[in-house]
Amino acid sequence: MAEEKTEQREKERDRYDTGRLTSFSDGVFAVAITLLVLSIAVPELPKHRADDLLGRELVNLIPIYWAYVISFFVIGLFWFGHHRIFIKVAEHDVGLFWLNLLFLMCVVFIPFPTQVMAQYSDSVVSTIFYACSISGAGIVVCLLLAYVKAKKLADLPPSFYVPFYSGYLSMVTVFLLSVPIAPLSVSVAKYFWLVLIPLDFFQERVLVKKVLERISARGG
Amino acid sequence: MAEEKTEQREKERDRYDTGRLTSFSDGVFAVAITLLVLSIAVPELPKHRADDLLGRELVNLIPIYWAYVISFFVIGLFWFGHHRIFIKVAEHDVGLFWLNLLFLMCVVFIPFPTQVMAQYSDSVVSTIFYACSISGAGIVVCLLLAYVKAKKLADLPPSFYVPFYSGYLSMVTVFLLSVPIAPLSVSVAKYFWLVLIPLDFFQERVLVKKVLERISARGG
Amino acid sequence: MAEEKTEQREKERDRYDTGRLTSFSDGVFAVAITLLVLSIAVPELPKHRADDLLGRELVNLIPIYWAYVISFFVIGLFWFGHHRIFIKVAEHDVGLFWLNLLFLMCVVFIPFPTQVMAQYSDSVVSTIFYACSISGAGIVVCLLLAYVKAKKLADLPPSFYVPFYSGYLSMVTVFLLSVPIAPLSVSVAKYFWLVLIPLDFFQERVLVKKVLERISARGG
Amino acid sequence: MAEEKTEQREKERDRYDTGRLTSFSDGVFAVAITLLVLSIAVPELPKHRADDLLGRELVNLIPIYWAYVISFFVIGLFWFGHHRIFIKVAEHDVGLFWLNLLFLMCVVFIPFPTQVMAQYSDSVVSTIFYACSISGAGIVVCLLLAYVKAKKLADLPPSFYVPFYSGYLSMVTVFLLSVPIAPLSVSVAKYFWLVLIPLDFFQERVLVKKVLERISARGG
Repeated sequence: MAEEKTEQREKERDRYDTGRLTSFSDGVFAVAITLLVLSIAVPELPKHRADDLLGRELVNLIPIYWAYVISFFVIGLFWFGHHRIFIKVAEHDVGLFWLNLLFLMCVVFIPFPTQVMAQYSDSVVSTIFYACSISGAGIVVCLLLAYVKAKKLADLPPSFYVPFYSGYLSMVTVFLLSVPIAPLSVSVAKYFWLVLIPLDFFQERVLVKKVLERISARGG
Repeated sequence: MAEEKTEQREKERDRYDTGRLTSFSDGVFAVAITLLVLSIAVPELPKHRADDLLGRELVNLIPIYWAYVISFFVIGLFWFGHHRIFIKVAEHDVGLFWLNLLFLMCVVFIPFPTQVMAQYSDSVVSTIFYACSISGAGIVVCLLLAYVKAKKLADLPPSFYVPFYSGYLSMVTVFLLSVPIAPLSVSVAKYFWLVLIPLDFFQERVLVKKVLERISARGG
Repeated sequence: MAEEKTEQREKERDRYDTGRLTSFSDGVFAVAITLLVLSIAVPELPKHRADDLLGRELVNLIPIYWAYVISFFVIGLFWFGHHRIFIKVAEHDVGLFWLNLLFLMCVVFIPFPTQVMAQYSDSVVSTIFYACSISGAGIVVCLLLAYVKAKKLADLPPSFYVPFYSGYLSMVTVFLLSVPIAPLSVSVAKYFWLVLIPLDFFQERVLVKKVLERISARGG
Repeated sequence: MAEEKTEQREKERDRYDTGRLTSFSDGVFAVAITLLVLSIAVPELPKHRADDLLGRELVNLIPIYWAYVISFFVIGLFWFGHHRIFIKVAEHDVGLFWLNLLFLMCVVFIPFPTQVMAQYSDSVVSTIFYACSISGAGIVVCLLLAYVKAKKLADLPPSFYVPFYSGYLSMVTVFLLSVPIAPLSVSVAKYFWLVLIPLDFFQERVLVKKVLERISARGG
């Protein structure tokens, strides 16, 4: 009897309501995505010549805007995935808390490789560094979902996992494939990332639909 | 039967609760509006002469305070519009998510043109750059509402659209009209923005009222 | 009939739920209070002599820590007042939205005078600038409450107003009184701010209690 | 009768709903943890030699990444403790508000010692400064819980206190013990912090379980 009580107590101790974890994570995402703007530095010019030079300087910043746009959408995408998982997670345990913290650590890190890529936009190393950072975060978010599934922390339908994994793993794949491309041509490696857009579209419309039909045909 | 199930499942997959999207957006707005203060740099002075020079230096910062005030109210206005739309949006789809992210990207960008305008306050280019950035965000928020209407994602009365569009489109118009004024006189272009205050008042009291009366007369 | 409808519609248009305004304001307060830490700059030292010099340099930062602590508690106090008002405000109109934005603008500004005071800690000008900035925000929060009362937007008991106004107006008074003290002695002006602590205690225990007793004796 | 009313009124005045305090605190934690990334500065290199030097420079930043990782987990741990207390605190008084603000002040401060340790990674002083800052925050969070218990503000089971105190006090102990180690060897002092991981595991599995069994055996 006493033992039973202890066990139940321990369970209570081990699982927590997810509401505040979610709002904390949202806050972290919101700050991380906004800090990206700090990577765009105001060009330093002599004040009396500002009008002659400022226009061209602002145009020269295009690689920096580009880095800003890519990272904004990547963090947005990670937020979206996080959102889709946690909307169904009613309670979390210590393990999920730590995995979530690890994921947030990867996301909060993103402004740094973004800034490196913005400052050294023609560099092979900065491109590879950026691609690896994004891939790392992508792998962690997949681990997060695998953990949620293994521990049965969420009430997610089987049809949830297919588009989720296919979405993030294709993202990881594209960024990792760009790593060997970068030493050949930095520009090609960066344009290669755009493959994600048609890939996403194709997945949504064709691949995922087929898989879901098959699941449902099996009477799932 | 199986097909029907799949369809419903897909719909479930396509629409999401808006609560967390809203709180994430609020967080982004809150950080972006607060980062504006970072555009006011502490003047660098020799410490032993601080008392002689600091007063005048703080007064010299007036164009910078001014840029801070304008951007604070502009971001506040954008937040208000976003708030008024999303308060009625119960669920969102992938399209609205991306449009919202695009809008947030424009809002988060605002501290950068603000800082450029603060640093090069007499410059034609910085004034035009600022006006275009604000106009861009204004256009995106109108697209956002148009999307919400087209997809019937919100339960908004017809009387909502008139003041909303008229408010943001007049804002876009005023900022775009200031672009050809800037090369003639930067100061006039900036004072021209103040036209928005009486315009807003006029719209609220006269224009919108008339339109709403007409709608209601038609038995709307 | 149609007119009545229009009127009601207009009213609906004029008043908004306060939930998101509150959460947005909370976000702004949270970011503003956290940005204060950015005003503490890491001392620049030659790396090989770090151990000899770092200790003394960290001690030399005491005026900067002090500015951080004061501003942290001041912003915390403003948040507390805001919190106490808005907890009772169920809906807001456009006027309250703008007043709230003005108040947030004053609060978000605080990290700047804090940084100025941190960098030029012995300066008369920086002390006066800081005192005026805090007083300005204190006056705006009182206006905010006066507006809420005038427009009957909140269900606040009469006993709410006495401690609120007495608290913030005594804060404004202390900071304004320190302005003429600063040119005589910057240190005295700063220590004078500590008067707020016993004053607060005295108000809470003695003054407010007496006033409340009198209100309740009148059968309030 | 009138007196009773006054008393009740005063009580109402003295206790506040905790919802917004929690969301404000979450916001502060989220911003503080995200600001850590600003402590990783992009290395300044001549642009044309970026590819030769950037790789090595990014590897040289390892002590800085390390400081980022430690502080990220430390702030995460503090958030977790805060979360576990406040989830059970339905209402707060002025004392808890101030203690909470003091705790947040310690947490928001953490990015500064992190940056000092990142910049002067081999320095004894920076290591001691960091260890003391973390210990300070750890002591304040224990005071916070003691206050909650003394004032009966939360409905926490006795089994809550044992793991909480043992967790944070062991953390404080480890960081304080590293202070006398630092002058002997900075690296050993830093590796010593890793003792926390097996210690945590040991506490969770063995110590806490035993204590809880004893409590439950007494019929608690």
